[in-house]
Amino acid sequence: MSSNFGTLFRVSTFGESHCKSVGVVIDGCPSGLALVESDIQTQLDRRRPGQSKITTDRKEKDQVQILSGTEHGITLGSPIALKVDNLDQRPGDYGDMESIPRPSHADYTYMAKYGIKASSGGGRSSARETIGTVSSGAVAEKLLKIKYGMEIVAWVSSVGPLEAAPVDHQTITREVVDQTDLRCPDPAIVEQMRALIMELKEGGDSTGGTVSCVLREVPGGLGEPVYEKLEAKLAQAMLAIPATKGFEIGSGFSGTRLRGSEHNDPFVLKEDGLGTVSNNSGGIQGGISNGESIYFRVAFKPPATISQPQQTADYQGSSVTLEAKGRHDPCVVPRAVSIVESMAALVMIDMAMRQEARLALRPSLQGQERP
Amino acid sequence: MSSNFGTLFRVSTFGESHCKSVGVVIDGCPSGLALVESDIQTQLDRRRPGQSKITTDRKEKDQVQILSGTEHGITLGSPIALKVDNLDQRPGDYGDMESIPRPSHADYTYMAKYGIKASSGGGRSSARETIGTVSSGAVAEKLLKIKYGMEIVAWVSSVGPLEAAPVDHQTITREVVDQTDLRCPDPAIVEQMRALIMELKEGGDSTGGTVSCVLREVPGGLGEPVYEKLEAKLAQAMLAIPATKGFEIGSGFSGTRLRGSEHNDPFVLKEDGLGTVSNNSGGIQGGISNGESIYFRVAFKPPATISQPQQTADYQGSSVTLEAKGRHDPCVVPRAVSIVESMAALVMIDMAMRQEARLALRPSLQGQERP
Amino acid sequence: MSSNFGTLFRVSTFGESHCKSVGVVIDGCPSGLALVESDIQTQLDRRRPGQSKITTDRKEKDQVQILSGTEHGITLGSPIALKVDNLDQRPGDYGDMESIPRPSHADYTYMAKYGIKASSGGGRSSARETIGTVSSGAVAEKLLKIKYGMEIVAWVSSVGPLEAAPVDHQTITREVVDQTDLRCPDPAIVEQMRALIMELKEGGDSTGGTVSCVLREVPGGLGEPVYEKLEAKLAQAMLAIPATKGFEIGSGFSGTRLRGSEHNDPFVLKEDGLGTVSNNSGGIQGGISNGESIYFRVAFKPPATISQPQQTADYQGSSVTLEAKGRHDPCVVPRAVSIVESMAALVMIDMAMRQEARLALRPSLQGQERP
Amino acid sequence: MSSNFGTLFRVSTFGESHCKSVGVVIDGCPSGLALVESDIQTQLDRRRPGQSKITTDRKEKDQVQILSGTEHGITLGSPIALKVDNLDQRPGDYGDMESIPRPSHADYTYMAKYGIKASSGGGRSSARETIGTVSSGAVAEKLLKIKYGMEIVAWVSSVGPLEAAPVDHQTITREVVDQTDLRCPDPAIVEQMRALIMELKEGGDSTGGTVSCVLREVPGGLGEPVYEKLEAKLAQAMLAIPATKGFEIGSGFSGTRLRGSEHNDPFVLKEDGLGTVSNNSGGIQGGISNGESIYFRVAFKPPATISQPQQTADYQGSSVTLEAKGRHDPCVVPRAVSIVESMAALVMIDMAMRQEARLALRPSLQGQERP
Repeated sequence: MSSNFGTLFRVSTFGESHCKSVGVVIDGCPSGLALVESDIQTQLDRRRPGQSKITTDRKEKDQVQILSGTEHGITLGSPIALKVDNLDQRPGDYGDMESIPRPSHADYTYMAKYGIKASSGGGRSSARETIGTVSSGAVAEKLLKIKYGMEIVAWVSSVGPLEAAPVDHQTITREVVDQTDLRCPDPAIVEQMRALIMELKEGGDSTGGTVSCVLREVPGGLGEPVYEKLEAKLAQAMLAIPATKGFEIGSGFSGTRLRGSEHNDPFVLKEDGLGTVSNNSGGIQGGISNGESIYFRVAFKPPATISQPQQTADYQGSSVTLEAKGRHDPCVVPRAVSIVESMAALVMIDMAMRQEARLALRPSLQGQERP
Repeated sequence: MSSNFGTLFRVSTFGESHCKSVGVVIDGCPSGLALVESDIQTQLDRRRPGQSKITTDRKEKDQVQILSGTEHGITLGSPIALKVDNLDQRPGDYGDMESIPRPSHADYTYMAKYGIKASSGGGRSSARETIGTVSSGAVAEKLLKIKYGMEIVAWVSSVGPLEAAPVDHQTITREVVDQTDLRCPDPAIVEQMRALIMELKEGGDSTGGTVSCVLREVPGGLGEPVYEKLEAKLAQAMLAIPATKGFEIGSGFSGTRLRGSEHNDPFVLKEDGLGTVSNNSGGIQGGISNGESIYFRVAFKPPATISQPQQTADYQGSSVTLEAKGRHDPCVVPRAVSIVESMAALVMIDMAMRQEARLALRPSLQGQERP
Repeated sequence: MSSNFGTLFRVSTFGESHCKSVGVVIDGCPSGLALVESDIQTQLDRRRPGQSKITTDRKEKDQVQILSGTEHGITLGSPIALKVDNLDQRPGDYGDMESIPRPSHADYTYMAKYGIKASSGGGRSSARETIGTVSSGAVAEKLLKIKYGMEIVAWVSSVGPLEAAPVDHQTITREVVDQTDLRCPDPAIVEQMRALIMELKEGGDSTGGTVSCVLREVPGGLGEPVYEKLEAKLAQAMLAIPATKGFEIGSGFSGTRLRGSEHNDPFVLKEDGLGTVSNNSGGIQGGISNGESIYFRVAFKPPATISQPQQTADYQGSSVTLEAKGRHDPCVVPRAVSIVESMAALVMIDMAMRQEARLALRPSLQGQERP
Repeated sequence: MSSNFGTLFRVSTFGESHCKSVGVVIDGCPSGLALVESDIQTQLDRRRPGQSKITTDRKEKDQVQILSGTEHGITLGSPIALKVDNLDQRPGDYGDMESIPRPSHADYTYMAKYGIKASSGGGRSSARETIGTVSSGAVAEKLLKIKYGMEIVAWVSSVGPLEAAPVDHQTITREVVDQTDLRCPDPAIVEQMRALIMELKEGGDSTGGTVSCVLREVPGGLGEPVYEKLEAKLAQAMLAIPATKGFEIGSGFSGTRLRGSEHNDPFVLKEDGLGTVSNNSGGIQGGISNGESIYFRVAFKPPATISQPQQTADYQGSSVTLEAKGRHDPCVVPRAVSIVESMAALVMIDMAMRQEARLALRPSLQGQERP
């Protein structure tokens, strides 16, 4: 297990699908930040199941509580513990599901790793685990907004084979994204997406999709070459989200087909200094932000839990037909939008604080005698 | 800077393009491993420039030396320092190149981050930095081979728009990959790739490409959910390689278009236990290896350094035409193959050691009274 | 803030004196351990205030709850969150105490560091913070007991100027230590200690003391030279306990006066292999356990909070007389015994798991061809 | 092995007594620092053996080389690799010494941990390992001096039973300390110390001693409660130095005998703000620096290697008489002075950078609306 993330702004998450509570401890959040539960609840509500017909019918209220680290609504600099109680705390009864690992689910690998697994639900591999990520990401995002004016906006860019039209990275907002329950800002395709999802839901099947994300007002200089290049930490962060299978930044996979003379981003003088004409780099060069917008895309596989019968084997290897019960998302991307934003925020706050530590020493160094 | 990687098998790399030496310190390598320079040199030779006509004409011998950590050819358990001397140690003369940041290169972002940059070459953003990665990766790989019989094989799967045919993950070997200087195991396309690269080299241009990689004989149970899921660490590792823009594992981006009923990997009894019929998961479920082969693909952008004239701006924002000199790779993927393998090995050895730590405690726990 | 401890068995604690809850998340605890609240409560009860007349009169029940990480009383391998609710959750009313930093307390330094401090009580510097340490230490200790039979016993070895007689490291037990509320196993001096403490309590004063600790059945080979030598991590762990000012291991400060010929511990054949005749080394040589008992001593200063009037200055520098109110311990060492044991357990479990990771690879290495 | 230290200013040391080189990689040093070999050599020369008659007769020149991370004498922000070649690179011939673990030396524990040990000298447990610490500490110290004007001065405060008179913490300098080869600033006792050491040297024996250290011009607010309290990291750092057995800060062990009313440090207005009248706290309260001088003392045991015959056992347990050969220090404390200073500098720079990261965010937080 490694439920820790970050070097200076460190989060440590906890919780399975059916334990008492899920949550997170944030260690290293600066003091003096105004922080109350509602600052966090907004993003939690965007990831919550049962928001609309296209998600699972399970209702979870997911009300966050601040257990420590603030007083009179201001952070003290001490660890901030955040907790959401599980309303449904039923460890399973070791029924049929216990003997059959669900295909493409984590049942089998958790057994392989731990020799034991939670008796029902997904345990720690459940999407409920992301509550800790989203809660702490909301705190990170508030800091980034105040310090740099940074804006982080993600949206659904495809559902199954249905691809949304390109989005203007400079103007897209969460308000626009949230205009539909699909969280896809291309109105021309939203109804097709909804129809596909409803069809799959009725047929007991599921589909994948992609989430795109843009970060604006990112100061230049963030990222820690070589192993913690900014794109490397974003890649880790995104592939740590359940059900993800790919990450690409800037021109991504399609950029591999271009020539250098087409792909290079020439410099030009902009209002606030040097910028680039194009942005195939996705706002990062050599692992460090260049001040342009950062954008990337994340691939989500179709949810493994489907109610159609599946021919598979039980733990002993005997051939069986599995018919899963329960209420599940036919497509996770609309709910994944706030998780992608939150993971991005956790990466950025840590990188920002690490860079600030060095910048703080720079003025003193300027007066030195040089050899 | 964060030139450290790993929790138990920790590497700390150093070196710029024109300093005295580049290299790595490995902290945490188990004692008792037979290790001499030639164990490391093989992979270094595969990443070396000047190997063939399709790479840069620069010749670098890149001879590795073991400075510490072994005695009589056996590791002592103490830090292993590995060093390759730079034959070309000319810090620049602050000429023309100093005033113009090369488009899509790291000149500008290093200045933004550090307020200073190496006066010539790429400094720390140079591909010479990967010598430390490849040297330590070779040590990791040797341990993985001995302990698990693990095999790691990468190859060129595309050059610009030219895509190689699919490769059999169970049989591909380094010997097959190395049959051509392209390191692409599809003989039908190699000559087209070579022709494209030679054309670009002559025209002072460059192209991108992709490298694919498979890991065989991976034990089940490796990977540390949630933030260090196996795919998350592989994604970080790959995006830490210079010039990478994307990562996908298993079905990747194309899997997002499938339905769950198509994408799920049903279980079946295999010779050595439970396995899966298909492998869209790419050998990992819920962040943990399942014992099937792991495979992934990495996107490399076209090299930024091209000798065609480029319209851009200098640091002051004045419009200029840049004509880069020097000898550079028109396409990095053939040399990137051993870097991809090495980063994969660094991820796997650390995950393996972390899992072994817990497995070691398991037998003692089995005799407990249970509540 | 750095409320994290450990590399493989990682704890992340939280909580101030007057927030909702204090507690800890344990990341990396092996799966399969039988664990229920009562396994933890025993040590918490030993650190609890209000145990007897010699401690503070404040009553805190400190009932621990397991929020996550177990099912049916067995650990799942996922993070274990432990929480104790604060019954007294009154953030202060910014009264007189707000304007005067208490001498030798952390009020002033928390303000210097964070620009804000908890409005009453000690905030994060309160001894309530140690609840997270003791809770997680109890889990660590259970693992160490099962795997190695390791025993960790601490006791009060001095109160102010009153020094207890030497204790037999091979036979001392917690049962013996707990025979008196002083937790000092020298019956000849307990009554003098009690009399001194009661006199100080009545006079509104306090005194320091020392706690000694022995670890038995420690396997050889634990400790990570050079910066995480076993004694170095124990020293860090002990100096992280509130009010500590010193640490010595084995012969400690008095050993500096000896000659090498007197101090060296010669080897001798023992029942279970090589051992040492004397144990001035305190069970550690070169940062690594040698299989003999580990013992060390920790210095605790007199509690800073006294009710006698003190001449000091307020934050503005004006001279004032401070008369502290509230109920405080005149001497912390009897309650510190379980904290010392818990920190020792957190060090040892992490070192043990790190060593096991390497031991697991050793057999595979033995069959290698050697150069 | 854990040869890494620090979170933002991270060092990774390497090297045994008889390998090619010993050294260190510093990751995270800010860019723009003027740094040449002579900045480092001064402290290396103070730790070098063969400085005077009272140390070992071995001569080691210990010339440091900068391999990477600087250009034209200025740090680039990239990893700084520092290396000292071993002039004596003779791995042993597996002679007599191989069969007998030297009493109180690390031979036995290295075998227990690694199953192998360097065939001669101390391997990684040799004092040569401290070259990496001292080299990187010199860089840290230069930064601390420039940024804060911080001064770190250590000295020999006792040799065996001979205790130096107290030293004025506000005025002691390295120049004064270095006036004698004993590095003890109490002229009244230096000759006795020298006589004792020479007597022991001739008799083939050794003695312990203590080193004291003061840090001046430390800004308030440094230290990371709870597990990385400033005193906790200093304790870890000092106990990571070979041959150390104890650490005490401020009033230390003797302070445990005092009453709170005697021990508390009242506040008073000083020139540059609030300070304390006395300094029993040693400049730290609650794990955080308070702006007063930090002082502490470190216990060094008598060196284990003595040339007197010792009755002990070989690895098989047979009783033997060991007569060690070679040239060794009869007392390490004069050479340990620069090691203590260097470890202190490594702690302080890391704590300083971590605090600066948070301070940098504070101004932005001041304009917030508060609840």
